Amino acid sequence: MSTQTTPTPLPDVIADIQANPDHGKLTVGATGMLLHGVRCHADIREHALTIDEPMGIGGTDAGPNPVEVVLAALGTCQAITYRVWAAVLGIELDEVRFETEGDIDLNGFFGLRDDVRPGFGAIRHRVILVGPEDAARYLELADAVDRHCPVLDIVADPVPVERVIETRKR
Amino acid sequence: MSTQTTPTPLPDVIADIQANPDHGKLTVGATGMLLHGVRCHADIREHALTIDEPMGIGGTDAGPNPVEVVLAALGTCQAITYRVWAAVLGIELDEVRFETEGDIDLNGFFGLRDDVRPGFGAIRHRVILVGPEDAARYLELADAVDRHCPVLDIVADPVPVERVIETRKR
Repeated sequence: MSTQTTPTPLPDVIADIQANPDHGKLTVGATGMLLHGVRCHADIREHALTIDEPMGIGGTDAGPNPVEVVLAALGTCQAITYRVWAAVLGIELDEVRFETEGDIDLNGFFGLRDDVRPGFGAIRHRVILVGPEDAARYLELADAVDRHCPVLDIVADPVPVERVIETRKR
Repeated sequence: MSTQTTPTPLPDVIADIQANPDHGKLTVGATGMLLHGVRCHADIREHALTIDEPMGIGGTDAGPNPVEVVLAALGTCQAITYRVWAAVLGIELDEVRFETEGDIDLNGFFGLRDDVRPGFGAIRHRVILVGPEDAARYLELADAVDRHCPVLDIVADPVPVERVIETRKR
């Protein structure tokens, strides 16, 4: 895959997995480290991300913070799933825009209240679809998207996380 | 906050929220759109992200894909929570590194199998902590971190997502 220079057409990707179901099974990853303060560096294959916190919550604002990045992942995963499922269902679609927001209460993160979860209490996700088809067709598409969108599934349903801690004496 | 030029020290952030619990309540957001193919642009305040898919699954690999970004968000959120909670608990900590991976089966995304979820079936998260303290102290820290890490909470526990679809005729 690393030497590939043009995208595999989506119908070919789907046909390959249909013929060889094991080709659908992937393990993806990210590595990274804490830099000065709360600033972080992350590597995803050849892509690098800088993650930080706003100055008002102790960071230097060198990048978005992790919960903001989750919202960007949700919005873009929805957008990509709209593109793919519009093709699968034969629905013409010109534009997809998203506005995604989440409510968080730092009383949870800082351990000031035990009855407040540290993550999002709620997410609101607005999708704007532009194209030539009737609204009913786009609502049909939206239902298919929400059943198949990976990040929506990760956020809305529990994912088992196995943790390993390794400590090294300085 | 936009005119602030130095980070608020964390003890001040915590003391302010302790005195005014409502100051802990934030709404954060991301907006964006689909570009050519499955490539996306996302805006988070003044920060921009390019999200795409690898060529092998129909993209141009101009950036990480959404599920990879979720793993980077989880790893960096854990790292930041280690920094913050080490300070809260008075534990000296020199370095935090992470290696985070997730298993995904595209049979779910493409709707080829109904018994396969579209998101991660499992996440494995390895944290490497370096510092002068005994391993037991770092395990105590790790437990506090896992109870207070926002992205771990978002991934491991269900978040309610409210969806609004707006359609516009071309």
